[in-house]
Amino acid sequence: MADIGKRRISILGSTGSIGVNTLDVVNQLGGQDSFEVVALTGNANVALLAEQAKGCGAKLAVTADNRHYADLKEALAGTGIEAAAGREALIEAGDREADLVMAAIVGTAGLAPTLAAARRGADIALANKECLVSAGELFVRAVEQGGGRLIPVDSEHSAIFQCLEDGQHGAVERIVLTASGGPFRTWTREQMAGVTAEIARAHPNWSMGLKISIGSASMFNKALEMIEAKHLFDVHPDQIEVIVHPQSIIHSMVGYRDGSVLAQLGCPDMRTAIGYALTYPDRPQLNVERLDFAKLARLDFEAPDEVRFPALRLARTALERGGVQGAVMNAAEEVAFHAFCDGRIGFLSMADIAEQVMDAMIAYPAASSMDDVFAADEEARRRAADIIAKTEMAA
Amino acid sequence: MADIGKRRISILGSTGSIGVNTLDVVNQLGGQDSFEVVALTGNANVALLAEQAKGCGAKLAVTADNRHYADLKEALAGTGIEAAAGREALIEAGDREADLVMAAIVGTAGLAPTLAAARRGADIALANKECLVSAGELFVRAVEQGGGRLIPVDSEHSAIFQCLEDGQHGAVERIVLTASGGPFRTWTREQMAGVTAEIARAHPNWSMGLKISIGSASMFNKALEMIEAKHLFDVHPDQIEVIVHPQSIIHSMVGYRDGSVLAQLGCPDMRTAIGYALTYPDRPQLNVERLDFAKLARLDFEAPDEVRFPALRLARTALERGGVQGAVMNAAEEVAFHAFCDGRIGFLSMADIAEQVMDAMIAYPAASSMDDVFAADEEARRRAADIIAKTEMAA
Repeated sequence: MADIGKRRISILGSTGSIGVNTLDVVNQLGGQDSFEVVALTGNANVALLAEQAKGCGAKLAVTADNRHYADLKEALAGTGIEAAAGREALIEAGDREADLVMAAIVGTAGLAPTLAAARRGADIALANKECLVSAGELFVRAVEQGGGRLIPVDSEHSAIFQCLEDGQHGAVERIVLTASGGPFRTWTREQMAGVTAEIARAHPNWSMGLKISIGSASMFNKALEMIEAKHLFDVHPDQIEVIVHPQSIIHSMVGYRDGSVLAQLGCPDMRTAIGYALTYPDRPQLNVERLDFAKLARLDFEAPDEVRFPALRLARTALERGGVQGAVMNAAEEVAFHAFCDGRIGFLSMADIAEQVMDAMIAYPAASSMDDVFAADEEARRRAADIIAKTEMAA
Repeated sequence: MADIGKRRISILGSTGSIGVNTLDVVNQLGGQDSFEVVALTGNANVALLAEQAKGCGAKLAVTADNRHYADLKEALAGTGIEAAAGREALIEAGDREADLVMAAIVGTAGLAPTLAAARRGADIALANKECLVSAGELFVRAVEQGGGRLIPVDSEHSAIFQCLEDGQHGAVERIVLTASGGPFRTWTREQMAGVTAEIARAHPNWSMGLKISIGSASMFNKALEMIEAKHLFDVHPDQIEVIVHPQSIIHSMVGYRDGSVLAQLGCPDMRTAIGYALTYPDRPQLNVERLDFAKLARLDFEAPDEVRFPALRLARTALERGGVQGAVMNAAEEVAFHAFCDGRIGFLSMADIAEQVMDAMIAYPAASSMDDVFAADEEARRRAADIIAKTEMAA
């Protein structure tokens, strides 16, 4: 491919699971012959970040954490690759001239740099959930105003995106999000009450980061995806269905008003969705495992259980209430997630805490700016921390 | 809908299974407020044909069989609906000015009237298999030259058509045709040897005409679909895969070079594919049963068995040999099918006879005109009849 045809990309969160897979896809598609990597960002793993930056010829490498700046700078000494650190540098990484930005920073930290890229008009390959969960309307509007495209990278939303037909939005009857059900699919609430983070992170199908693994076990991940789907695909909450599908082969589906359902299937490998986002609307040749239907033998489906997995019920509540309830649910649960990982609260308490904070903030005004979103997010975090602290004092 | 927006349609084969369902869909979509029915054609069931013509306000009703002309004329007396009969009248029905022609005449008899419609430039909703199996290249060229669109109505090919993305033909890696496996899916060859047409026609999932039901039992139907798929989607024979899927919920799939597989699913109801063909690229609101995934519970897949179902092997042979082998396979099997229904030959003999005729005509020249196709078809029928007669004499 001639230099002039190179796609300029940045990867926000390159050292995480999605980031590592994105660089693998970039290499499969010709590496520096096809892509010019503008910026990479990471967090504590600066050794990997520096190695990635050198491998793909990135212009800029940013660690989110100022404490790692010296290490990063040293690791990149003599390479000509610019090193930077901190929140403002992250935003600059999103703001630098790339045609497409892979937004793969996990959590609320991904909001500001992704928003910077969207406002600048970059195509956004969206793997961060919070942009839509916490700031749905504002984020979608920023992308529209910037003029870039919004291409989901979550396997579920990528599947739906692939199953939506141009010009047929009015014919969409329902969106069917598939859920593996996680490692506790068949467990009782009593069994789940005592699990640790180490047990909860063992996902049956996907190899993923810690937060997403725990979120899969509690189905909180699916709750976030329900809210994401509403904003990404502009559907009514009633049009969003969740079905448990333990094999994770059907990644999600779209049901149309003629009774037809389109589904996207694949082996559990994020690289297909990543490749699709990098080259959309074209489909790249990828070296990933192909589905062998005779070997699969069967695909199963079960109704989800909102009693054992209350996160699904909370998502419906957040969708019905609107306003900042998505941001509140997410922020409270993120605090609860960390408390769970630290062994401070039990597995089932994560949803309880999120629900308490959502109820307490039911009258909180809707956000008209990102600052409003951040304010709601902060208040939810503070309230969640308070509840956790009080629980510990009582115990 | 204003008169000026009415879609003019003709239904070739309106009294068969596809025809009856097409008229149901026409009614669901507004009947005479949305569609102007130009012509209907049927065969012996002139009572139904006349009733249909009156019900939908058709301009012309044609019976293929001259012997039924008087009955049809009498049934339509005083309605103002024109009655006609015979082969030339069938062709005229295809040739009359309709925007879309539903080509649902079963067998080789459907070739000439469908071709007339294609040459005139009508959009062709194709339910007749022989247009592609017997005259693939010529038929596809006629549609292209006429300037109409070719929209498949078979549930399998409609599914593939729905899963193909604009501009991504080069990214298609494989087409996966699903097959119910029919009523003898788990039977041994010995068990199949003794079955009658009455047993063989009992299809587990779909309510269909006799020929298609028997073809499902022998998987000869799937063999025809493999050849159809080659012509419809311009793929190499190696790119066509068959997978047995007993529930008939996934109607077929397309696999792309990025590992992604798109599938179209639905309840077994031809009306979804018919509605799609009638309003393509729009999707109409249809009153058909919706899929309930929790109720489905599971979907199964099995590798097809070309020993027990030799028709699949014959299709690969026909695709590899090219030329008129598709026409020959189809014509020989049609003769064998009638002999089987008459109790003259056994179930397994159908494929044997088709294979013998295919082998005998291996050097037959490729067709450069429809007359060549008809000549090959006739020779194959004569040879098949000879083999059947000799078998009977020997017995």
